[in-house]
Amino acid sequence: MPDAFIDRLYSAVQKKKSVAVVGIDPTPACLPPGLRQRMEEGGQELTAALSEYCLGIIKAVADLVPAVKPNIAFFEAYGLYGLSVYKSVCLAAHSAGLLVIGDVKRGDIGSTAAAYAEGLLDCPFLGFDDVKDDSSHDLQKRLGSLLGPHDALTLNPYLGSDSITPFLNRGLPKGQGFFILVKTSNPSSSEMQDLHLASGGTVAEAAAMLVAKWGKQAMGGCGWSSVGAVVGATHPSEIGRFRKLMPHTPFLLPGYGAQGGKADDVVDAFDRDGSGAVVNASRSILQAWLKEENPGDWIGAARRAALDMNENLSSALRAAGKWNF
Amino acid sequence: MPDAFIDRLYSAVQKKKSVAVVGIDPTPACLPPGLRQRMEEGGQELTAALSEYCLGIIKAVADLVPAVKPNIAFFEAYGLYGLSVYKSVCLAAHSAGLLVIGDVKRGDIGSTAAAYAEGLLDCPFLGFDDVKDDSSHDLQKRLGSLLGPHDALTLNPYLGSDSITPFLNRGLPKGQGFFILVKTSNPSSSEMQDLHLASGGTVAEAAAMLVAKWGKQAMGGCGWSSVGAVVGATHPSEIGRFRKLMPHTPFLLPGYGAQGGKADDVVDAFDRDGSGAVVNASRSILQAWLKEENPGDWIGAARRAALDMNENLSSALRAAGKWNF
Repeated sequence: MPDAFIDRLYSAVQKKKSVAVVGIDPTPACLPPGLRQRMEEGGQELTAALSEYCLGIIKAVADLVPAVKPNIAFFEAYGLYGLSVYKSVCLAAHSAGLLVIGDVKRGDIGSTAAAYAEGLLDCPFLGFDDVKDDSSHDLQKRLGSLLGPHDALTLNPYLGSDSITPFLNRGLPKGQGFFILVKTSNPSSSEMQDLHLASGGTVAEAAAMLVAKWGKQAMGGCGWSSVGAVVGATHPSEIGRFRKLMPHTPFLLPGYGAQGGKADDVVDAFDRDGSGAVVNASRSILQAWLKEENPGDWIGAARRAALDMNENLSSALRAAGKWNF
Repeated sequence: MPDAFIDRLYSAVQKKKSVAVVGIDPTPACLPPGLRQRMEEGGQELTAALSEYCLGIIKAVADLVPAVKPNIAFFEAYGLYGLSVYKSVCLAAHSAGLLVIGDVKRGDIGSTAAAYAEGLLDCPFLGFDDVKDDSSHDLQKRLGSLLGPHDALTLNPYLGSDSITPFLNRGLPKGQGFFILVKTSNPSSSEMQDLHLASGGTVAEAAAMLVAKWGKQAMGGCGWSSVGAVVGATHPSEIGRFRKLMPHTPFLLPGYGAQGGKADDVVDAFDRDGSGAVVNASRSILQAWLKEENPGDWIGAARRAALDMNENLSSALRAAGKWNF
């Protein structure tokens, strides 16, 4: 039995002394001029430039943070070319000792969810012992046919339990985890998620209750579940409320940095020992070179931005009496 | 200015005298024995067998129905191999005169939605005049880098307007359309979508109101919007209610056939002239050969099942005084 995702994340947070996750969302605007030009040439040059950029970011942050979160949209934007880079980015991050949270936000009916789970969670690269038990396919032949490897995935709750359980059934026994959207970081998240229910609470709170329920079957040794929740760092006043509704659910907090979330905004998500949440920043790390004089040192700029983020988060947690690393 | 998606769908329904859509969801169980065996060999054989199967289904139904709806999950299950087949299936369907509704159910924050829209909606294959205006990329070089072509996409509403508008802004001017999840066909759709709101109505009804609002900017000449709604054929008692809430919104009704939806269940979705909805069936068409003696004639079996579906739907609509083709 492989270690649960949440225990692997907990160990990585302790080892790196960091609760930061770097979102790998390579819009063309993130790439420094030379790489961007090559990317716009298309075809093989696009693939090579996109890959060089993402691998540079991984190199910059590999020893500083526990995990990266590549969002597949920014690779799917370039179709099959881009998706082949997505796969190599996941592989490279995993090889560099980073956990890989695949930001795919999938949500579909049961039979379809099972198909997504097959493509996104079957990761023989991970070296988990139990993949040898997979009798339905010759894994060697399928090595080339997988996206990932993924240690965890993001999922959308709108379709309910039967859209989630195929992922849990396939991933949890292999030590994989999930972060399910509860309250997203974007401005219009209020339109659906903040609607008040006749029974009390909001739509997002109803999602929170479902996520807490789904997570009960996935409790790790560290006291947290491998089924987590996405709660935007852009809603500081609500984070404490969601923490109370989901006391054993780890939070992935996107929206830090460019979207406006600050270190002080997220402390309520953490337990007294600094566990229970990770904070994602994408653009503020990826585009850090824009604020420096030499765009050629974009790797160094990303590294400095990640160090800053670590320092800001640990200071805020220390001030709140929640830092024990 | 290309014709609006909904006008192209309306014309295709009239020309084919059919309101049926065939869902291309090729689980291994759908493939007849010989093809399934080749698929399980993996690699190139998987790609070839999956492709042969899907192109056979397209050949079987091309003159019978206005559109097909490939669900990308069943291709992503085979990673990059599968996604290359997805693309060729979209191309083949389009070449065979079918509209292609890409069932991708995407939903993410604004900047990410824009990236998805780029990968899924930039379809120079379609021959739309205005793609020549795309100055950001050399389209010739990007020909190989796109998923699709898609005439329409399915989207998830949980993140609200800023997750939807990047798709509308990119797709509507090119004559593309959308079907946004309102009430899905799966059993556990009730967990989130049927929750009652303090202000009256349900979560799904709130989604319906948003979809109707988003659709106002996309009214076609036929009187319907190019922004449609997904409403499960498995909830017959609710279809009429959703029709009243979204009087100008075309419905995509999944769940017909294998999931339990019947022709009589869906008539409330249609207007008096038989317009306003299309009905999707997947497994009942794809696996029709299972019910016949000769699995070798799986193409013929799919064709007969599609003819049956057309006959059942037109009979039900005729009985309700809603068939004028």
